[in-house]
Amino acid sequence: MSTIRVAIAGATGYAGEELIRLLLKHPHVQLTSLAASAKWDRPRPVCEVYPRFARRLDLPISSLALERFSSSCDVAFLALPHGTAMSLAPDLLKAGKRVIDLSGDFRLQDPAAYPRWYKFEHSHPELLADARVAYGLTEFHKDEIAQAQLVANPGCYATSILLGCLPLFQANLVEEERFIVDAKSGLSGAGRKADQALLFTEMTENLRAYKVNDHQHMPEVLQDITRITGRAARMGFVPQMIPVTRGLISTLYVRTRATFDAIQDVYERRYAASAAPFVRVRPGVLPELRDVVETNFCDLGLIYDQATETLIVGSALDNLTKGAAGQAVQNFNVMHGFPETTALN
Amino acid sequence: MSTIRVAIAGATGYAGEELIRLLLKHPHVQLTSLAASAKWDRPRPVCEVYPRFARRLDLPISSLALERFSSSCDVAFLALPHGTAMSLAPDLLKAGKRVIDLSGDFRLQDPAAYPRWYKFEHSHPELLADARVAYGLTEFHKDEIAQAQLVANPGCYATSILLGCLPLFQANLVEEERFIVDAKSGLSGAGRKADQALLFTEMTENLRAYKVNDHQHMPEVLQDITRITGRAARMGFVPQMIPVTRGLISTLYVRTRATFDAIQDVYERRYAASAAPFVRVRPGVLPELRDVVETNFCDLGLIYDQATETLIVGSALDNLTKGAAGQAVQNFNVMHGFPETTALN
Amino acid sequence: MSTIRVAIAGATGYAGEELIRLLLKHPHVQLTSLAASAKWDRPRPVCEVYPRFARRLDLPISSLALERFSSSCDVAFLALPHGTAMSLAPDLLKAGKRVIDLSGDFRLQDPAAYPRWYKFEHSHPELLADARVAYGLTEFHKDEIAQAQLVANPGCYATSILLGCLPLFQANLVEEERFIVDAKSGLSGAGRKADQALLFTEMTENLRAYKVNDHQHMPEVLQDITRITGRAARMGFVPQMIPVTRGLISTLYVRTRATFDAIQDVYERRYAASAAPFVRVRPGVLPELRDVVETNFCDLGLIYDQATETLIVGSALDNLTKGAAGQAVQNFNVMHGFPETTALN
Amino acid sequence: MSTIRVAIAGATGYAGEELIRLLLKHPHVQLTSLAASAKWDRPRPVCEVYPRFARRLDLPISSLALERFSSSCDVAFLALPHGTAMSLAPDLLKAGKRVIDLSGDFRLQDPAAYPRWYKFEHSHPELLADARVAYGLTEFHKDEIAQAQLVANPGCYATSILLGCLPLFQANLVEEERFIVDAKSGLSGAGRKADQALLFTEMTENLRAYKVNDHQHMPEVLQDITRITGRAARMGFVPQMIPVTRGLISTLYVRTRATFDAIQDVYERRYAASAAPFVRVRPGVLPELRDVVETNFCDLGLIYDQATETLIVGSALDNLTKGAAGQAVQNFNVMHGFPETTALN
Repeated sequence: MSTIRVAIAGATGYAGEELIRLLLKHPHVQLTSLAASAKWDRPRPVCEVYPRFARRLDLPISSLALERFSSSCDVAFLALPHGTAMSLAPDLLKAGKRVIDLSGDFRLQDPAAYPRWYKFEHSHPELLADARVAYGLTEFHKDEIAQAQLVANPGCYATSILLGCLPLFQANLVEEERFIVDAKSGLSGAGRKADQALLFTEMTENLRAYKVNDHQHMPEVLQDITRITGRAARMGFVPQMIPVTRGLISTLYVRTRATFDAIQDVYERRYAASAAPFVRVRPGVLPELRDVVETNFCDLGLIYDQATETLIVGSALDNLTKGAAGQAVQNFNVMHGFPETTALN
Repeated sequence: MSTIRVAIAGATGYAGEELIRLLLKHPHVQLTSLAASAKWDRPRPVCEVYPRFARRLDLPISSLALERFSSSCDVAFLALPHGTAMSLAPDLLKAGKRVIDLSGDFRLQDPAAYPRWYKFEHSHPELLADARVAYGLTEFHKDEIAQAQLVANPGCYATSILLGCLPLFQANLVEEERFIVDAKSGLSGAGRKADQALLFTEMTENLRAYKVNDHQHMPEVLQDITRITGRAARMGFVPQMIPVTRGLISTLYVRTRATFDAIQDVYERRYAASAAPFVRVRPGVLPELRDVVETNFCDLGLIYDQATETLIVGSALDNLTKGAAGQAVQNFNVMHGFPETTALN
Repeated sequence: MSTIRVAIAGATGYAGEELIRLLLKHPHVQLTSLAASAKWDRPRPVCEVYPRFARRLDLPISSLALERFSSSCDVAFLALPHGTAMSLAPDLLKAGKRVIDLSGDFRLQDPAAYPRWYKFEHSHPELLADARVAYGLTEFHKDEIAQAQLVANPGCYATSILLGCLPLFQANLVEEERFIVDAKSGLSGAGRKADQALLFTEMTENLRAYKVNDHQHMPEVLQDITRITGRAARMGFVPQMIPVTRGLISTLYVRTRATFDAIQDVYERRYAASAAPFVRVRPGVLPELRDVVETNFCDLGLIYDQATETLIVGSALDNLTKGAAGQAVQNFNVMHGFPETTALN
Repeated sequence: MSTIRVAIAGATGYAGEELIRLLLKHPHVQLTSLAASAKWDRPRPVCEVYPRFARRLDLPISSLALERFSSSCDVAFLALPHGTAMSLAPDLLKAGKRVIDLSGDFRLQDPAAYPRWYKFEHSHPELLADARVAYGLTEFHKDEIAQAQLVANPGCYATSILLGCLPLFQANLVEEERFIVDAKSGLSGAGRKADQALLFTEMTENLRAYKVNDHQHMPEVLQDITRITGRAARMGFVPQMIPVTRGLISTLYVRTRATFDAIQDVYERRYAASAAPFVRVRPGVLPELRDVVETNFCDLGLIYDQATETLIVGSALDNLTKGAAGQAVQNFNVMHGFPETTALN
């Protein structure tokens, strides 16, 4: 089978580093170009930036020079800060490249949502509803992804929440179409940026909530529920940072009067191993974080609380793998007809 | 003012160690006796067990010899594994000692609750409803505590949950009298015991739920809501261990249609600094864990989510201080007419 | 190329788990049998013990039944507590199996060293000097390993220390043949065992020295220096636990009057990529722990201190990979003529 | 006894925060003024900066306005970045204030050392040898400190190293007057500053050496050895960051041919409890980090290695307490004739 030339923009961030780690294992990928998020005055060998890759990858990381970057590749992974990809993508598309974007720049279809949730005006609103653009929640949009020229890879929280609640919404089992999410995330989700609030000394032995009911992953969750069920939903969302590097658990609290047998059946049918190799349903327990760290799995634990008529769903994944780079590679596989699990198992 | 002779049983556990740390600062306390939780063949100097106390406390820790222990003290703090204090307390009471018990042995009034929640038959069920016994949630039972001969110091989760929800229940603002608690606790809550599941290597970079809807602090929460409001409540409870040593946050999700102004007013009036010096109400934010670690404060953050008509209460405390030894010393102060904050600020 | 049937004893320990992780990636290995370190009353599916392996490996873990275990495999990896392998190995050898032992049972050639360093009498002293047994420090004993029927895989500290000092000893550049090692190790080195001293609550925010000048890896270091150079050496050794899970850095302090250029040359020639693909020499810096975690590399940083005429060698590796399971797989590759890096890159 | 008015500059850093924590407990101190390290556009209540101090201290933190700051206090603690205090101190001294400076600005007597080690020219070199200035290693300079108008509080590493080696140098027991220090420090030593290398995600599960043989605490160590013994010494120094917040252990390797009895005697006589209440000598063991965290103790463990004729000294202290704010308060006590341990036990 042929080899695909792949370039990564944002190779100096955590998601970019994880893309390198995964794509080095991909038998059909040749890494051709690595671009930093920031401006650099000179290219640096990858092993200077990441000593851990010494003797494993011999390629410089340079500032992004779009033309050179574009011509070096068939497929571009963009792992850049929000608001950056929207300016780069049009040229890449025009040059016939396929693009997998890990930022929020193409996740929302309503241009008015960008100023509200991302604090910027979208520079190419016409692309948001373009038929060539697909939302990359692999388990629910595989056909669109296969055809897409640009895949908007979902947010880490959004992936965990949507995988955790969509089967229940599809089965029309959510009372009043509303639910609560109490989420706990590792700190790599905040990116590799010098921020006092993310220092070891500030976060070890700590737990901190942030952007309560105000996180930018909320609109993509609600949009996808509506896209898939045709109905609107309401969601309370408490994201929290805990002192771990990788991994995230969204705990969903959903009122429902369905029996636990019926609920379990809904999830297990939806996520059979053949159709969804990376979603593991575990009735009766809640998953531990380390069951999924450094894997592309999303583990869904299910417990029903009779007293409050509430289904508790623990949805665990690694925010850098299934929540970012891993799902991006999964989508890459779907786009090119490779087995979905290539380089991910 | 006179000095009170104090003995600690369970000085080798985390709560016992914290009792030593706090009581060393108490101007009216003389530590007279320290007993280990386990059987030891010989007494050991405290600085052999805790090198950190060298040059600060010169007292041996020995196996518990009840008669000697009892005669050495006016007040006994019992920080022993559940099921141990119930056999010791009757003799201490008979000898006229006042007892502050940090275990669950005297928290529940219904003897039948013990086999269900603690897996043992209570050996002295007649004491559970005895008028000399008070439930030690200081902010709500100060008068009973002042008179009590035995104080059943509340559980750490129970303290955080009750302080977080009682004002709302008292004001009759909880829809359907039910609520959800998603709690995250440091690992000292599990005690200093050789347990593979609590190894550094198992818990760092991890998060684990346990005893979902099955934790022994649930009945004491529901009992106290009923005792105070006369009504029954229902509660869903997801306790989780996170990789920190000390501190606990219970996040309460309560449906209510009250306005946020009304809610805020209820909490701020209930916890004015004069009446409740250790409860700090913080409308509009959720507390960080480190705001309370190694203090006796319980911080209550309040946020109202309009979309789901849900009040979110973040209730943070240090499980070893306000959740155990600190509240025990606070109760000790109340029992003896000392200012409530002595040795705690 | 043919497939080799592999069995693992001690699959429930950290080294055993790492062996599973690595061997799942090996194209020429079929895992046929997994045995627990402890006695179990029934076999348990691997995904019950390790939920992270669900959907990736479908094999039970059972108590060790030697005959069944032996007949299931061509090669046996033994990752058992010290003192266990010495009783199993003779039967496996007799049955014609090749054995890679990760314990200390076959590392020392002098039977008298076992009571001194491991606190047991060796049950098969005749095997210690048997020609079929090789010491598995791959970079220095490749030929013996290729021929061996039993490989005694080195200890994690020993691997890091020997790789760090052997070139210097071989070049006869160590003053007075003595050196100091200040080593810092992650806690997985102590194994998955319920030990109060290894609790999260005891080790987070802590550092603890142990077995100072009394660690069982010392004699294998000194033995190999002598085996390779014909001279005796003296070593001061301070092993310390730091609050990380994986990885170890041994910092060597060696007095020498050689020039830094000469020293650098000695290391770089000895560890050229072609001859030692897993040893990376880095003059002028000391390695960080995370450069090597979850890799099979040993990174050697070199700094010369003129003031004290001391060469400082920072030798970093992952104690579970190059320090245990990874080197074991590397030796497996050498024994079977596979490229040394198979399943390890 | 009278109350002393105290101001803190640099109240927003870790050492400043620790000063607040300690001075709140001091019976003879009134905190009158808190200044931030950075420029702020408005004063902020201390509980906005540190929610943990809510209800405990009601004072604003503002930008430093020297005149107002100076006039508010009798004694000023300066906990500012290196290179800042040297411009403030002269005016404070002129106004008759006593100053305790926690930076390096007045530690070195040779002006030429500043460009070499601190990368700045000293703006008031005449003060460096001024008789009113004392080096604040309490245990060795108590008389000068008692008289001083400005105390240069020692660095954290310097304190641990000097307390660890000075008795041996004084007794003339160090071979060739040289020694090696392998030091491991928590990350608060690097200060509360937004630095990518200090992120939780970069330092958890990591260990990193830095400034090897190039750390600015080296010259103050060598200077004090010479000041006290009249002889020059040589030192190799490997400082390392480990993933803990507070605490530091310097492990000293010193060749000596003295007997262990003689060595032990030297230390125990020098650090008798009456003369040095915060130095605890522990022959035969090396101290754990947590024995000293959040205390003002320096624990000295002593082990002699016969094989290499090397004395191993483990010198442990809390870098924010005995290594900074605690020793500053200890010096404050000495300067004012309070018992040395006031507010520190």
